[in-house]
Amino acid sequence: MADFKIPGITVYRLGLYVRALERFLAEGRELISSEELARECGVNSAQLRKDLSYFGQFGVRGVGYSVPQLLKHIRRILGTDREWHMILAGVGHLGQALLNYELLAKRGFKFVAAFDIDEKKIGRVVNDVYVYSLEQLPYVLREHQVDIGVITTPASAAQEVADRFIEVGIKGILNFAPVRIQHPPDVVVEHSDITILFDKLAFYVHRLD
Amino acid sequence: MADFKIPGITVYRLGLYVRALERFLAEGRELISSEELARECGVNSAQLRKDLSYFGQFGVRGVGYSVPQLLKHIRRILGTDREWHMILAGVGHLGQALLNYELLAKRGFKFVAAFDIDEKKIGRVVNDVYVYSLEQLPYVLREHQVDIGVITTPASAAQEVADRFIEVGIKGILNFAPVRIQHPPDVVVEHSDITILFDKLAFYVHRLD
Repeated sequence: MADFKIPGITVYRLGLYVRALERFLAEGRELISSEELARECGVNSAQLRKDLSYFGQFGVRGVGYSVPQLLKHIRRILGTDREWHMILAGVGHLGQALLNYELLAKRGFKFVAAFDIDEKKIGRVVNDVYVYSLEQLPYVLREHQVDIGVITTPASAAQEVADRFIEVGIKGILNFAPVRIQHPPDVVVEHSDITILFDKLAFYVHRLD
Repeated sequence: MADFKIPGITVYRLGLYVRALERFLAEGRELISSEELARECGVNSAQLRKDLSYFGQFGVRGVGYSVPQLLKHIRRILGTDREWHMILAGVGHLGQALLNYELLAKRGFKFVAAFDIDEKKIGRVVNDVYVYSLEQLPYVLREHQVDIGVITTPASAAQEVADRFIEVGIKGILNFAPVRIQHPPDVVVEHSDITILFDKLAFYVHRLD
């Protein structure tokens, strides 16, 4: 079963740590203190140490963390040290933006197929990814091993798409439609809400004056 | 000056609390315990209470929070109890997805103009928003009061666009391009990294087995 004891916000911060460590590595840094890494991520260092303590003992007191080792550890914890195969339903603007987003593939998240219900989109190829009719989902799943289903449909279609994804055995769903998805407990659904970023920016701009 | 003592992750969680409170309000809930609100947001209740304590005293011990009052308070803290005027540069797939995203306008974030350097896009109207040449930025800023500039250009163009935004007096920038933006201290820049969501999902799916 899923390790749901780890809070979602901790996992989100692991993602922040990975990206900060990647930047430090690119600068040729070998060692980093928890204070510096925390500051780079906008969290405090006690929080950073607590987040990492869920997963074992890292770093050496008074010395800090080895940048490449901690990066490797966190990637292994996240499961991003391997490739993930994904499909996407809803080839609108956001869907096409994701299919074209090279950074995702660079991070090991690869789209193997896309789906739509619009006849004008079915049969098109977006960044080497073929757009199938949603009816062809079971067929595609026989041809490809798929880990993650991404939903970029309008809100009204999201639950039906999720139901179909779950029916064919997909265990991870990332939902960009602004609606909560109902799902069985052995399926993981993450909801993306881009509007929170605008709230966060508003907060800081609001306080500039 | 900006109240940078408040960690970014706390502000992010305020956004989560707002959305959870909106759902509770839509269900007709009047009161909520910190435990239930925290659980709905995937954080622990001590964290929730600490986040709110930055901004004052909310709720009544043993009774909980008034849903509509706490919602109003957090919106005021975030500055999302008013309208924000935005411009966007880079009318590609992601740019068009954002211009068409009705939920943003519903939350008070309104695009007043868009910009591109592609002659084929300049002069088009996307969801009632006119696409100008980037050269016309100073002219548009004389016509509109603008709070936030959104960057959805390729990485290679993001810094130049940010420089132009800053030059015309924009104080808040939301950057979706996968590159760090350099900026003076009196300008707030938020970086969006959608790939973190994929990491987070990978973590939980990885642990399903």
